[in-house]
Amino acid sequence: MAALVIQEERRGRAYANKRGSRVVRVALAGCGVVGGELARLLVRLQRTIEQRQGIRLEVVKVLVRDTARLRPVNLARGLFTNDIGQFLACDADIVVEAIGGVSPAQQIAQATLARGARFVTANKALLAECGDELLETARASGATLDFEAAIGGGVPVVRALRSSLRDASVQRIEAILNGTTNYILTRLERGAAFDVALADAQRSGFAEADPTRDLDGTDSADKLRLLAWLAFGLSPRALSVDCRGVLPDPEKLVREAAAADLSVRLIASCERIGSEVTATVEPLFVARDTAFARTFNEQNLVVVDFGWNQPITLSGPGAGGLPTATALLGDILSGEVVCC
Amino acid sequence: MAALVIQEERRGRAYANKRGSRVVRVALAGCGVVGGELARLLVRLQRTIEQRQGIRLEVVKVLVRDTARLRPVNLARGLFTNDIGQFLACDADIVVEAIGGVSPAQQIAQATLARGARFVTANKALLAECGDELLETARASGATLDFEAAIGGGVPVVRALRSSLRDASVQRIEAILNGTTNYILTRLERGAAFDVALADAQRSGFAEADPTRDLDGTDSADKLRLLAWLAFGLSPRALSVDCRGVLPDPEKLVREAAAADLSVRLIASCERIGSEVTATVEPLFVARDTAFARTFNEQNLVVVDFGWNQPITLSGPGAGGLPTATALLGDILSGEVVCC
Repeated sequence: MAALVIQEERRGRAYANKRGSRVVRVALAGCGVVGGELARLLVRLQRTIEQRQGIRLEVVKVLVRDTARLRPVNLARGLFTNDIGQFLACDADIVVEAIGGVSPAQQIAQATLARGARFVTANKALLAECGDELLETARASGATLDFEAAIGGGVPVVRALRSSLRDASVQRIEAILNGTTNYILTRLERGAAFDVALADAQRSGFAEADPTRDLDGTDSADKLRLLAWLAFGLSPRALSVDCRGVLPDPEKLVREAAAADLSVRLIASCERIGSEVTATVEPLFVARDTAFARTFNEQNLVVVDFGWNQPITLSGPGAGGLPTATALLGDILSGEVVCC
Repeated sequence: MAALVIQEERRGRAYANKRGSRVVRVALAGCGVVGGELARLLVRLQRTIEQRQGIRLEVVKVLVRDTARLRPVNLARGLFTNDIGQFLACDADIVVEAIGGVSPAQQIAQATLARGARFVTANKALLAECGDELLETARASGATLDFEAAIGGGVPVVRALRSSLRDASVQRIEAILNGTTNYILTRLERGAAFDVALADAQRSGFAEADPTRDLDGTDSADKLRLLAWLAFGLSPRALSVDCRGVLPDPEKLVREAAAADLSVRLIASCERIGSEVTATVEPLFVARDTAFARTFNEQNLVVVDFGWNQPITLSGPGAGGLPTATALLGDILSGEVVCC
């Protein structure tokens, strides 16, 4: 494992080190399930990335709530701070945000983008609330805003919609976007009790300590807003998402579905009809041989219909530290190097 | 439908037009199933792209074999040429290549990349043969080389491997990469004769007039080389692909599989074990409820295993003019604008 070269904070843009690699200074807000995994990836892959791509990613500051807590990552204690002012002052080339929630993430995002630096985030709530304003700030300063990790965990759906498929006429998106509820529904189908399934999801790092936003559809709705933003150019805050009957009693739903030899999945969908876009999040009964019913545990599924013979389908782990951290790392790298 | 503004060839880089849009000059090599569809997309979406993204894509030259042939695309006759020298001399900001084969595509690619312009291609044979050299030329001049359309048609697998998932440790890729053979196998399973299935594939624009490269596994092997290039950083020409028993008698294979209640699919796979990468293309019997067996007609499927709980799976139309042309358009746009 390559030791991370710890270096003092330096002002100014990227510079070359002795080996001729370009040094890119990374500041990380949040060091929990996702942020901590990213920190470990940055340590473990530092040498590989430098050898293959000629850039050396150096962590220069980590924002955490509790600087005293021991963390299983090989970074010097002096890099950790719980002071946002100090965190922002490190003036990194890239700020990665994995703390979640709108505040103080919005402040970090605005400060970073306003000075023209790169902002990479896993934060769907932040973008659903103020993605428009952040993009505007980024455009004004020439900064970049990337958020592959905000939807679908390790599933590369943001990039797929943002570039490869952009401006083709997306007609409809149907998706399973919340790993926690899908994990719970799958476990219930296999006979587990709700409390056990939820506790297991939390232990595996898929569900938050407070899973309200997962269970009431808010998390799915936030991600759906971002998909509609990417696909249809709609302001995420302006889109009205109809959350219907979202999981007051998942055990009852699963029992009813099983009686009809069906599965239950929490399905988010949006569709453009003329100039209108409708968006819905609701639990639906689906036939057992469909791609939706075959989406198990924390898996996510996104089906994009362009009106071609067949839709584009993307699936994979929609939650979990490593897949989500890998998506963050992909965003970090994709803005720095053009390569194979 | 927006009329395409026809303009004289101009020397020099992108400039702004009267509406303040940045004009990006596109030269298109090839105007067949894919190139023709791209030309129509560029005409149809020109105004939408300009309004949403502030760039105006203008076709300034089209290289074709036969300039006399009537083509169903709203472009001035004077834009068409069959002279490579004249085509290259137009000095476009982006050259899109959809003629296929190594020659003269290689000449066009090298000339474009050497002068620092963007090269976008759907040509797997070209990249499998000389992707390394083209990338080297691009790096030396600061040009960009994009090829989303070369693998998987409309399925955004190149971008997924190239950026979002890059430098995570890909362990194994298994894929259905050839739309023509998958279409034929699907049709045979449903009782069609080989000749009828092939003729239908050709009529639908999935199969070439000469389908040898599809049926003997060469096309799958070329695409697999590109996937290994993206995932493992291996030179595509250097990778040895073991093509085993590729489709001498697909009807017999399908009969044998059906007798055992299985399906046949032409599966390309590559795997890293230690520092070695093995690569294989072969027809395999697969259970009917697997994702492979459920990949029908011209659909492609790519399963990437990172050693996470679940692999990443991408699927969609792997052939056909519109999906492939849409992938080309995505590459054209993704290098020009950063947006949602």
